[in-house]
Amino acid sequence: MDKYSKVVEELIQFRNDREWEQFHDSKNLALAISIEAAELNELFLWKKEEEVENINKDRLKEELADILSFSFLLAEKHNLDVFDIISEKIKNNALKYPVDKAKGTAKKYNEL
Amino acid sequence: MDKYSKVVEELIQFRNDREWEQFHDSKNLALAISIEAAELNELFLWKKEEEVENINKDRLKEELADILSFSFLLAEKHNLDVFDIISEKIKNNALKYPVDKAKGTAKKYNEL
Amino acid sequence: MDKYSKVVEELIQFRNDREWEQFHDSKNLALAISIEAAELNELFLWKKEEEVENINKDRLKEELADILSFSFLLAEKHNLDVFDIISEKIKNNALKYPVDKAKGTAKKYNEL
Amino acid sequence: MDKYSKVVEELIQFRNDREWEQFHDSKNLALAISIEAAELNELFLWKKEEEVENINKDRLKEELADILSFSFLLAEKHNLDVFDIISEKIKNNALKYPVDKAKGTAKKYNEL
Repeated sequence: MDKYSKVVEELIQFRNDREWEQFHDSKNLALAISIEAAELNELFLWKKEEEVENINKDRLKEELADILSFSFLLAEKHNLDVFDIISEKIKNNALKYPVDKAKGTAKKYNEL
Repeated sequence: MDKYSKVVEELIQFRNDREWEQFHDSKNLALAISIEAAELNELFLWKKEEEVENINKDRLKEELADILSFSFLLAEKHNLDVFDIISEKIKNNALKYPVDKAKGTAKKYNEL
Repeated sequence: MDKYSKVVEELIQFRNDREWEQFHDSKNLALAISIEAAELNELFLWKKEEEVENINKDRLKEELADILSFSFLLAEKHNLDVFDIISEKIKNNALKYPVDKAKGTAKKYNEL
Repeated sequence: MDKYSKVVEELIQFRNDREWEQFHDSKNLALAISIEAAELNELFLWKKEEEVENINKDRLKEELADILSFSFLLAEKHNLDVFDIISEKIKNNALKYPVDKAKGTAKKYNEL
């Protein structure tokens, strides 16, 4: 079994052992992702540009793991292949951000 | 090559073609995750419990893909194996949420 | 002096006593609002519809106070009158959400 | 009538004209604050330190107005005086962040 399927199985096992599926509707999973993303951002709050890579690596791991865990559970709930949806999004973004226009600029596609 | 490595390679290629690495410091990547998470949550805003699974599947795919893309890029920047950090987090959570105490309740570990 | 001006003065005094203005650029103030908003949302995470008004009132007060404090400081930094910008937004929203179309529905203006 | 009470009255009138109170439970109001906060943050995404004050002022006004509107509605729903809760929070923060320890540093209170 590949590593992705294996870790999703672990997540589901953990959830089922605790009978938490009843709480994991899509709205609450999305909210959980958001809350974990904010905890990740807290690591960088008030930090100057030169301090930005100088963070607590353990907390980075934990917050990223939380964001990914809830994202994988939400994907699994909707039978989405996470790698396929990313590949598809990259293809769409290539149309919105053609290399010749987007190179070296952080502008949004509607401002290019 | 496994699917994870392949999609991360695609993400990096897309970024490098546009010379966007200069914008992708950890603070901005974390901020991007947060903003995409909010766009995901917008799909559920004002929705009643019974409507919560009844959402625009295309937008769900796109927002999840965005969250995962920036999360994978942040992990890659810090040389983190996303599957390892999730497995490690599950192990830690098992200590914070023992089955006999956490079963069937959504309480936080410090309230169990 | 009105209550708004008074509380903004308190916020500025608190900030200046600690020499924190150096950290309060607009990007970090916006990020702080977001992080406090996530802490507010955590009060409601995993809650079912019937439990949603049944929350820790002290934490509600604290999180709302934090969101408002950073919002007032950001407004003050840009010389914005918070009451004027809200009134203006209400006028704009009245055009986007005319009563006859928007009554009783939670749809976004571009779907009305 | 003071400006705060007047604008809250406008917000309630706008909401009631559209029969939107049914959607405005505390959980959804909190979620709305979070989503508007993310839209505010989008103004700063990928911005370097020197560009951070150089933003679209109209969008700043709109996003701040949205955050404040939903915050005021949530406060009103719970009969909270927004100025009192901020003053109270400032007092609590003064204990957590004594001037002599907190001056000139962005550390969190538990790291001081």
